[in-house]
Amino acid sequence: MTTAAALGSLFRARSVALVGATDRSIWSQAAFANFERIGFTGRIHPVSRKGGLVHGLPAATSCAAIGEPVDAALLMVPEGAIAQAFADMNAAGVRNAVVLTSGFAEIGAEGAAKQEALLAAARAEGVTLLGPNCLGFINYADQVPIWTTQPPMPVIRGGAIGIVSQSGATAGFIAAFAHRQGIGLSYQVSTGNEADVNVARVVDFLVDDPATKVIGLFLETVHDAPLLAEAARRALAAGKPIVAIKIGASETAARAAEAHTGSLVGDDRVFDAVCRQVGIIRVSSIEDLVFTAALLAQLGHVRDRRLGLVSISGGVCEMAADHAEAAGVMVPRLAEPTKEALREVLPAFGTPNNPLDVTGGAMLDASLFARSLPAFGADPAIGLIACFMDLPDTPEDIAGYRGEIVRQIGAGFRASGKPCVMLSVMTRPVMEPGRALLAETGITYLGSGVQHGLAAIGRAFAWAERQERGLPAMPAAPAPARERPGSEHATLDYLGRRGVPVVPLTLARSAAEAVAAAGALGGPAVLKIASPDIAHKSDIGGVLLNLAGPAAVGEGFQHIMARVRAARPEAAIEGVLVAPMRAGGGVELFVGVLRDPLWGPAIAVGLGGIWVELLRDTAIRLLPVTPAEVLEMFSELRGAKLLDGYRGTPGIDRQATADAIARIGDAALALGPGLASLEVNPLRATAEGAEALDALAIWTEEG
Amino acid sequence: MTTAAALGSLFRARSVALVGATDRSIWSQAAFANFERIGFTGRIHPVSRKGGLVHGLPAATSCAAIGEPVDAALLMVPEGAIAQAFADMNAAGVRNAVVLTSGFAEIGAEGAAKQEALLAAARAEGVTLLGPNCLGFINYADQVPIWTTQPPMPVIRGGAIGIVSQSGATAGFIAAFAHRQGIGLSYQVSTGNEADVNVARVVDFLVDDPATKVIGLFLETVHDAPLLAEAARRALAAGKPIVAIKIGASETAARAAEAHTGSLVGDDRVFDAVCRQVGIIRVSSIEDLVFTAALLAQLGHVRDRRLGLVSISGGVCEMAADHAEAAGVMVPRLAEPTKEALREVLPAFGTPNNPLDVTGGAMLDASLFARSLPAFGADPAIGLIACFMDLPDTPEDIAGYRGEIVRQIGAGFRASGKPCVMLSVMTRPVMEPGRALLAETGITYLGSGVQHGLAAIGRAFAWAERQERGLPAMPAAPAPARERPGSEHATLDYLGRRGVPVVPLTLARSAAEAVAAAGALGGPAVLKIASPDIAHKSDIGGVLLNLAGPAAVGEGFQHIMARVRAARPEAAIEGVLVAPMRAGGGVELFVGVLRDPLWGPAIAVGLGGIWVELLRDTAIRLLPVTPAEVLEMFSELRGAKLLDGYRGTPGIDRQATADAIARIGDAALALGPGLASLEVNPLRATAEGAEALDALAIWTEEG
Repeated sequence: MTTAAALGSLFRARSVALVGATDRSIWSQAAFANFERIGFTGRIHPVSRKGGLVHGLPAATSCAAIGEPVDAALLMVPEGAIAQAFADMNAAGVRNAVVLTSGFAEIGAEGAAKQEALLAAARAEGVTLLGPNCLGFINYADQVPIWTTQPPMPVIRGGAIGIVSQSGATAGFIAAFAHRQGIGLSYQVSTGNEADVNVARVVDFLVDDPATKVIGLFLETVHDAPLLAEAARRALAAGKPIVAIKIGASETAARAAEAHTGSLVGDDRVFDAVCRQVGIIRVSSIEDLVFTAALLAQLGHVRDRRLGLVSISGGVCEMAADHAEAAGVMVPRLAEPTKEALREVLPAFGTPNNPLDVTGGAMLDASLFARSLPAFGADPAIGLIACFMDLPDTPEDIAGYRGEIVRQIGAGFRASGKPCVMLSVMTRPVMEPGRALLAETGITYLGSGVQHGLAAIGRAFAWAERQERGLPAMPAAPAPARERPGSEHATLDYLGRRGVPVVPLTLARSAAEAVAAAGALGGPAVLKIASPDIAHKSDIGGVLLNLAGPAAVGEGFQHIMARVRAARPEAAIEGVLVAPMRAGGGVELFVGVLRDPLWGPAIAVGLGGIWVELLRDTAIRLLPVTPAEVLEMFSELRGAKLLDGYRGTPGIDRQATADAIARIGDAALALGPGLASLEVNPLRATAEGAEALDALAIWTEEG
Repeated sequence: MTTAAALGSLFRARSVALVGATDRSIWSQAAFANFERIGFTGRIHPVSRKGGLVHGLPAATSCAAIGEPVDAALLMVPEGAIAQAFADMNAAGVRNAVVLTSGFAEIGAEGAAKQEALLAAARAEGVTLLGPNCLGFINYADQVPIWTTQPPMPVIRGGAIGIVSQSGATAGFIAAFAHRQGIGLSYQVSTGNEADVNVARVVDFLVDDPATKVIGLFLETVHDAPLLAEAARRALAAGKPIVAIKIGASETAARAAEAHTGSLVGDDRVFDAVCRQVGIIRVSSIEDLVFTAALLAQLGHVRDRRLGLVSISGGVCEMAADHAEAAGVMVPRLAEPTKEALREVLPAFGTPNNPLDVTGGAMLDASLFARSLPAFGADPAIGLIACFMDLPDTPEDIAGYRGEIVRQIGAGFRASGKPCVMLSVMTRPVMEPGRALLAETGITYLGSGVQHGLAAIGRAFAWAERQERGLPAMPAAPAPARERPGSEHATLDYLGRRGVPVVPLTLARSAAEAVAAAGALGGPAVLKIASPDIAHKSDIGGVLLNLAGPAAVGEGFQHIMARVRAARPEAAIEGVLVAPMRAGGGVELFVGVLRDPLWGPAIAVGLGGIWVELLRDTAIRLLPVTPAEVLEMFSELRGAKLLDGYRGTPGIDRQATADAIARIGDAALALGPGLASLEVNPLRATAEGAEALDALAIWTEEG
């Protein structure tokens, strides 16, 4: 059975055993009640060693005693009883288990061993295992709940957002918030300690789930990073956005995650880079997760991403415009014919503009909306209209002028010819009467408020732009290199053979050889100590720049040798490297490849000197990268403008530089998993191209 | 009457005329109904030219016909009838007017002229005028509403936040949101076009208002910047925080503001700097405004700003920790005795930590909160405890385990010995039953959610820190300088006489003079063309660096003269300036003084080169500045680390450099309002001190 099919058989179980069911446990009570709350139409079997009536049903004394096929078991027994429950489950041929029980990897080494045993038991019988230390899942689309706390009530049907969370309580919070905002879900899945089923596998499943249009994640760590990256690529290709909270930007959160589920949160900057690379939308709050996912679920891919803003309040117009700019969204000026058409409609004291303040006159005559929105939407520069108006809460308000305003906005939306969304001014819930009004008017609405609403629009636009840009074809894995370069000379030589432009180097073993090599350059030379044992050559006087003429070069050779021998008498010295002096113009780049513990080999690119050292201004990608991706990395750098030239220096050849960097990445990949890091620093980029001036490879002990 | 007393007589009016009252206007209906809604106990006089019954009361045909003293009139007449209404009001001796009417400065030049006339009419009779184009005000503290739309219902009494907004609708939105969150106000004031009363004057009033603990602002522009700065300084000294939304960070918003109230929004970076300088807390959304103000109104000044975080969910703990770090809030580790005490209380699978995950066990036994919070609060490293738990909404929930959890948290808070706040996990309203539970338990609560809640805590902490730092004594205004330096030579000479260390310059009119001057330096020289007409000397070859020896200096003189005469034959040339070459080490700073149209003279400081030119990395303050304030400016720069040395360069003498910059500011101020700008670029700073190497003053045409 494929892994997706295995998850399908869990998530669509028609017959469920509640192992350890008891009227005394709130978890068991909730799990049982949820079947009715969610509308489950399959069969429920309480299992209790003592038998008797549990939750009003006769309990089987074991899974084996149920006497009919069971698709999935929810295990609520204490940690000490898990092995026996598993054995019983296996005897009954149950192939899906959801384990609520705690006391595994989250409590440390002892628990981790127990979790390994649990996983081994599952693997032995081909059991799909969700948990342990999880709350279960709700499949809203097929009305299958195996969930152990109270779900949001009343449930909103037809939801299109699939939520997957490593924290069960947080999955519940997300679901509760979504429902309060009138937003339904397709799935909510708590993966807990992820002994077997992890977020990556559920995402992989949801990419192909027809009920799910958007996937929302709460992550503490990533247990199968390659699968998550691959699933995210598939989701992007399929036009299914993924919105993710990943905690761990702070050291404190990382500490907390370790206490919570024993997770290592990983390098936050690498996760951020992966999101950019594979099109995951990263947010930091449940509000932003839910509003962004809901907007995308409703609007889908917005092709024309120029925003028209409309409000009854000038102040709201201005706030929205500021938030639009902060979100990177363009709010274009109106064309003259649009302004003329709006002048016909607006009161005398109104001004046709984008953002459009329809004025407080709309309180007296709500048809101002229905009349101005079509004129506004007819503007060729506007792709999406966002109109700020709170959805009324109560039947009285809906019957009154507030309801009338919303109906007029609905009419204006329909006549506008553009995709439209109504947003509340401040964050506020959506009540049942309001939802009915939305259904009546066909309005797409978020109770997000200006701040979260514009952030959601900005993210939806960025996702659509990312989706249009697509993913580069995954380059073929480079042919493995059966060598292990270490020193500057060997590393640059290796890179040169892999197609990276490198500065020509000659190893001189004597002053005479150095003079000869420098003479062949036809210009000033650089001398650098050549030793596999010395990483920071400059610090011990192992580098001399800009030496012109035989005397200077010859003396330089002696100087370097003397200084290095004095400083590092134990170091093996091969001689001195002679290179041409490169000076004037150009930009020095830093290129570093390292192995992320979760994600594997990644490449970082930055401007040299203060940019990397003081400002930590680097762009990161998982390897391999294409030159096109490297060009995107350039544009992420805060110092990117420097690449276009500064104070008369011409800009660099970005394409040639990107080619060189992609080749450095490939060359590093080809060195295999023993490579700890490979640094090219600097890669000198000019209008003529790029050239590696220095390089260093570091190998792991085991490598 | 002082301006504060004038506002007091408006805001505490006991007898109000509604001029233009009619049953047919929703504004008039709302204004009348609001007196009862807010609980006004004074006298209300509808005034209608036709007389008869209006809003069920006999209407006077004019203010004069009312026949008893009237404290304030609300004018709701059309723009064309304003002059007559004003005349009537004056005849009746009414000294306070609130003008709802639109059609003034917000519609352009014609309206601006009408507004001038309105203001003149008010000034002539000593009338305090709120508006035009405003919605009025509600004084919740004294129950005086002169407000023309529906206020939040039901009104929350005893509020301590005074809201002042240039947008009337936005004042209403803020009030509505605050009330939905269970947060009361002391005032809400809509200032509209601010012909007379402006935000600065209302803030000045509220600083002394005993009911108001926190002031919240919505600004499109600033009409009396010096008064606002002064009032903000008084507020900071009085421990009364000001939280402000100021729109206009984007060009689009600036355009919208002009259409809305005819406002010029000003330079956003200057406003930002003023906020930093005088301690205004700037936010960008109504949610952040209300939650920050409410937190400050309840917690006041928090002395110990190390945060303890508590939740029933590990996921929430981690999110909160990340948001705390983003907000600049410290979440300290627990001391070993605290951990030991918590181990006694927590379930076996729990971990004593900050953030503290009390675990889902608290669902079964809510007393986990009451038992763990005192142990947690006893930690010497924790100053404030924030516990995440949603306040239940309904009587059933309050009677159930959700209510019990809140009661246990209340008990834990009281026993913790620390200031405590409970925050919801996601943004959600506060309902009446929940408010009763808060009153019962004495819990300070915000329905802010993690994101807005931690942002509010971060801002409250930053404000408290700012308040403790205090404001420097305003330096005496520098003695005016009766001169008008323009050229580099004259400007540096002037700065030198004002106590700014400047590089020694000699004006040479011949090669021989240049050689002599350079010889006297005892080191390499710099030659620069001296001309009042040439600003960018380098661009035309007017600068030569590092000239050593008489031959080089003599030739250099001839070269510069020849090149400049060729490039700029019309320029008046005084000769060539000879200065010592300064090279190696040190940091080049940019110091610029300019006149902001709203705020007056301001100073910008940045690192030279790419930092100012590419990254726009400058810190700004209004003048005058003290050296202590300049030291703060340094720390705001992204490149601040460079000031401490980089790659072996020693750090600069920050104090001496700050002294020099403060003196540059004083020297620029002394030149009076004719000075358009004064730039020192570079100010070279080293471990030995600072020295101005180049300077340029630009004067206004009229100056």
